[in-house]
Amino acid sequence: MSVNVGILGATGAVGQRLIQYIEPHPDFELTALTASESSAGKSYREAAKWRVNTPIPDSVADMTVVATDPDEVSSDVDLLFSSLPSSVGAEVEPKFVEDGFVVSSNSSNAREDADVPLVIPEVNSDHLGLLEVQREERGWDGALLKNPNCSTITMVPPLAALDEAFGLESVTVSTLQAVSGAGYSGVSSMEIIDNALPHIGGEEQKMESESRKLLGEFDGAEVQYHSADVAASCNRISTIDGHLENVWVDTAEEITAEAAAEEMAAYPSIDLPNSPDQLIHVFDDPERPQPRLDRMRGNGMAISTGGFRETTDGVQFNCLAHNTMRGAAGASVLNGELLLENGYL
Amino acid sequence: MSVNVGILGATGAVGQRLIQYIEPHPDFELTALTASESSAGKSYREAAKWRVNTPIPDSVADMTVVATDPDEVSSDVDLLFSSLPSSVGAEVEPKFVEDGFVVSSNSSNAREDADVPLVIPEVNSDHLGLLEVQREERGWDGALLKNPNCSTITMVPPLAALDEAFGLESVTVSTLQAVSGAGYSGVSSMEIIDNALPHIGGEEQKMESESRKLLGEFDGAEVQYHSADVAASCNRISTIDGHLENVWVDTAEEITAEAAAEEMAAYPSIDLPNSPDQLIHVFDDPERPQPRLDRMRGNGMAISTGGFRETTDGVQFNCLAHNTMRGAAGASVLNGELLLENGYL
Amino acid sequence: MSVNVGILGATGAVGQRLIQYIEPHPDFELTALTASESSAGKSYREAAKWRVNTPIPDSVADMTVVATDPDEVSSDVDLLFSSLPSSVGAEVEPKFVEDGFVVSSNSSNAREDADVPLVIPEVNSDHLGLLEVQREERGWDGALLKNPNCSTITMVPPLAALDEAFGLESVTVSTLQAVSGAGYSGVSSMEIIDNALPHIGGEEQKMESESRKLLGEFDGAEVQYHSADVAASCNRISTIDGHLENVWVDTAEEITAEAAAEEMAAYPSIDLPNSPDQLIHVFDDPERPQPRLDRMRGNGMAISTGGFRETTDGVQFNCLAHNTMRGAAGASVLNGELLLENGYL
Amino acid sequence: MSVNVGILGATGAVGQRLIQYIEPHPDFELTALTASESSAGKSYREAAKWRVNTPIPDSVADMTVVATDPDEVSSDVDLLFSSLPSSVGAEVEPKFVEDGFVVSSNSSNAREDADVPLVIPEVNSDHLGLLEVQREERGWDGALLKNPNCSTITMVPPLAALDEAFGLESVTVSTLQAVSGAGYSGVSSMEIIDNALPHIGGEEQKMESESRKLLGEFDGAEVQYHSADVAASCNRISTIDGHLENVWVDTAEEITAEAAAEEMAAYPSIDLPNSPDQLIHVFDDPERPQPRLDRMRGNGMAISTGGFRETTDGVQFNCLAHNTMRGAAGASVLNGELLLENGYL
Repeated sequence: MSVNVGILGATGAVGQRLIQYIEPHPDFELTALTASESSAGKSYREAAKWRVNTPIPDSVADMTVVATDPDEVSSDVDLLFSSLPSSVGAEVEPKFVEDGFVVSSNSSNAREDADVPLVIPEVNSDHLGLLEVQREERGWDGALLKNPNCSTITMVPPLAALDEAFGLESVTVSTLQAVSGAGYSGVSSMEIIDNALPHIGGEEQKMESESRKLLGEFDGAEVQYHSADVAASCNRISTIDGHLENVWVDTAEEITAEAAAEEMAAYPSIDLPNSPDQLIHVFDDPERPQPRLDRMRGNGMAISTGGFRETTDGVQFNCLAHNTMRGAAGASVLNGELLLENGYL
Repeated sequence: MSVNVGILGATGAVGQRLIQYIEPHPDFELTALTASESSAGKSYREAAKWRVNTPIPDSVADMTVVATDPDEVSSDVDLLFSSLPSSVGAEVEPKFVEDGFVVSSNSSNAREDADVPLVIPEVNSDHLGLLEVQREERGWDGALLKNPNCSTITMVPPLAALDEAFGLESVTVSTLQAVSGAGYSGVSSMEIIDNALPHIGGEEQKMESESRKLLGEFDGAEVQYHSADVAASCNRISTIDGHLENVWVDTAEEITAEAAAEEMAAYPSIDLPNSPDQLIHVFDDPERPQPRLDRMRGNGMAISTGGFRETTDGVQFNCLAHNTMRGAAGASVLNGELLLENGYL
Repeated sequence: MSVNVGILGATGAVGQRLIQYIEPHPDFELTALTASESSAGKSYREAAKWRVNTPIPDSVADMTVVATDPDEVSSDVDLLFSSLPSSVGAEVEPKFVEDGFVVSSNSSNAREDADVPLVIPEVNSDHLGLLEVQREERGWDGALLKNPNCSTITMVPPLAALDEAFGLESVTVSTLQAVSGAGYSGVSSMEIIDNALPHIGGEEQKMESESRKLLGEFDGAEVQYHSADVAASCNRISTIDGHLENVWVDTAEEITAEAAAEEMAAYPSIDLPNSPDQLIHVFDDPERPQPRLDRMRGNGMAISTGGFRETTDGVQFNCLAHNTMRGAAGASVLNGELLLENGYL
Repeated sequence: MSVNVGILGATGAVGQRLIQYIEPHPDFELTALTASESSAGKSYREAAKWRVNTPIPDSVADMTVVATDPDEVSSDVDLLFSSLPSSVGAEVEPKFVEDGFVVSSNSSNAREDADVPLVIPEVNSDHLGLLEVQREERGWDGALLKNPNCSTITMVPPLAALDEAFGLESVTVSTLQAVSGAGYSGVSSMEIIDNALPHIGGEEQKMESESRKLLGEFDGAEVQYHSADVAASCNRISTIDGHLENVWVDTAEEITAEAAAEEMAAYPSIDLPNSPDQLIHVFDDPERPQPRLDRMRGNGMAISTGGFRETTDGVQFNCLAHNTMRGAAGASVLNGELLLENGYL
């Protein structure tokens, strides 16, 4: 028995990835696509400049795109995935939820609202309980669930593994992020060929704050942010997909490089269609993970780690994930699967 | 009155850059070029695959290359610049010095020998005094002076500025290094297009240790390494030239982002032909420095910094320098100028 | 009933791609791997620096590599795929064939020997008859079959479609070739970042001559080369995989852009496991095909075309294929399938 | 005695390059900068996102930008350089010329108007005589002079050398063009990393037609386009600067590769400040010219050639020029120098 799903903001880069996930999905049936007013009424084929490296599915190409407005989407749709620009998301997502829709959103708005759960299913699925608080406080029938920023998703499962075993006190992270994270036109070629950009506006703050919400405790009423210091520096480099991150952690308990790697390898996955069997892959080879070689591990949903070394008060390591799969579209789909599994649809 | 200089290992990437510096130099006259046995006897034009983007100087093209052997180099040569592979340098540099030659070397061998000065002229020119110790202990007439690794040079002047004002307690650094740092054939295109490499063999250790020697105290007999913890993670990205680095420091004294930037901007240069008027340039724009736009500042000899932010116990910032100019060939030439200025030639 | 196959030169870039094809193949069972003496006796995992973006198959990882010598390969092996360096291939391939092995080779040696068939199955499978001539003349029990150079394979199916319908008189081609065509270490990053190379040694000649052999007539005794003039200019650019080519043809019969595109779209494929249903895909969008977006079409075995325009005496168009799949490993595997289909195994 | 010059469209990529040429120019003094309404009234520093790799000149940074309107530019300005978007240029350039301004324009509008000279000074400076026709027909006091498209400029001087000696009958050209040719935001990084684009809208037509105007005869009244067939295929690749082109020519007179190279090397330059001593540089090495290594030859104003080979009815060769220097800003400045030399200012 399949669930009717729709995509808010279906024509953009993440929207195209969402279609790649949903079209063959065992439980989801794609029945609605929204985009900006200028695309409304067009076929998806006309409205989207399809730019992923598999052909556009025939069943989707001829669907008609509607405006991003609750009145335009049938109430038969059980679940909406949202990849709207955050300014648009901030305005329209609440309207959809008010009208009773359940929304799994990748947009950055509202991620840190106190009554909006921010979830990576393998890490903090218990935060889903915050939806009850949300419904009570807002009087909503639907539900709004968020996944974190792509660079945050990459490091949080490894950090969660270490936190459980050794207790995190501080985290320092430097990222080497792919251009797809900025959307199709986000980074011009003149900016990035033979170059790197040492700053991504707002990204450092997202990593520092979203990670502490994800690693925090939900006590039934609210999420207590994790107390660790997190300091991030975000760089854009000329890779297409795959965020690579250098991480240093100081821990409360004594830690070794070997123990850190073991905890990550043993960190459990979750039983959902798009969650990989092995969530965190550990490389012995210090030259791995590398973006082009390792981003597709676990169908683009696994986290790869390597380069474990001890430091004075902790360890350093590298981690990598596919930013538009595990870090964006796949993250939203996984949250949709979690909602289904937990009876929210 | 000009000084006769030679280049050991003149055909490689750094050797070619050395020629770019020496050919127009006001004080140096290029009179000797050495390379491996297979190149000996050839004209430089034949021996070198010239790959810098200015034509090979006519005066150099027709010089005859000799083997890298003290017997092949005229004793009229007052100063030798060395850009030999470190295994070769370890073997032949001592022979040249034993024979009375003064060598300013970029090769990584012997950089941490107790009686070999490791110098950035603007930072620790007083370490030159170690040459007296070297001569006494080894019975050498010549002298062996080293410049540090390219990724180390990039961060040490900014660190020195902060250390003097606030006292460094710990340094964490993540690098985004250009491919030229590995030499002309060091990184294959298959390794780096749409990719990044999260590890550079030996580089992390060099940064962690050479930086502490450079920032250390010379007491007339030996260099006491600086006590700060230094933890490095080195990445290779697809830039041609220019190493970009994300740095976090914890300091003994209280520090602000603004004060950190001010100390760097005020850090003095030195009066040598290839030292820039302004050693450390500070950008207000957090999107700078960028490798392609900023590596040539100060004729490729300045350090650029930006992105200053406060952290719990210190600050973070970014720094950038041209790795084959300020970080290799230019570093050796500057050390040669320092030797001349201090009467060692 | 499956065929035992082996790979000569199994550790290189094309060898790794061959494993990707053979491991899941319905008819082939991989039972032998050869490499240079220095790798003999090692497990494949140890011997190969595995660099494709899917993990090394477990069943292959533990196989023992043997030297590339007929005495080291069991006579149970029915078919050998060869991706040896051409100088090695020239020496050892004849020895294997003399010993009775059937060899489907991607190595460039002997491609234009009069009694060695050079075949693209969809284009000139009848040239396989040359194997009878080969056996008679050389007294060999085995057989040596070659596939052409990767840049030649990309343009020959489109040219064959036009030749049949309009008669080719001249061909001018400019290529934009991916770095993987030169092997893992063939192009250094310093050569290609922010750069292009306007010449690939020997490649222009291969395209000009191999294409005329492929398009030639086999009369039962020999192949008459096609009479068209072919002029090629080969460029290397910074793409990982996928050769893009600009082609101009003058034809004997009148031709239009539309008719050219139609002939290509209608050009038949062949019924072999790795041949795509649609051999030549035609894009209406003049901005396609593009290497990253289109190289994987037909599981990396289709040819993509676009940009059809009329010229004074003919048409111009663009074509693209995956150079290490359709253009190398896949080409050899397809030739192996053709040998099986035609009773040579 | 210096000439007052202004720049129409001063904040864009070509505008920034124009400033690099004009600021140190011996004859030109920069006194006016225009941009769109939204920039009017701002300092140049505020209005322009300066992105060339030399710092913004102090004397220019504080100039006030005015709107692109003849009423806003002082009549003391003797010469205007225009790098406006072509739609804007089509509208406002005639107004400036009507008001008496002399305009040297890089914008693509009006290049093929019958009374507008399209000039490369070293090739067809006699076409300047068309300005008399222009003044008569339009009743203008000023003058409008155009330089061709960047990809056209790269090949026309080599073609002119061959035409004079051997008579051109046909030209086939394939380009590998740098991203800067599309302006700062013209090509997104997602489009070009690990990719190439096989089509540049309108560029093929410009090359085919502008080249024939440049090589045409001016008879005192009009320009007769050259009769050669020209067929172009334009590709975008991931280089920052420098267009590389593969060219095939058929000639009326017999030609050899050697003779072609000799004619190019002997082709005369012109005595203007920014024209290089040697206009066309010929490489013996078939691997040159290469964009990154050779684009700066002659201060970015020389054309480099190589790879000469004979074909059935002609020769093939490669050529390269810096597209935003020789191909855009430098081309306009050179035309300005030609106007000054010929008494039009």
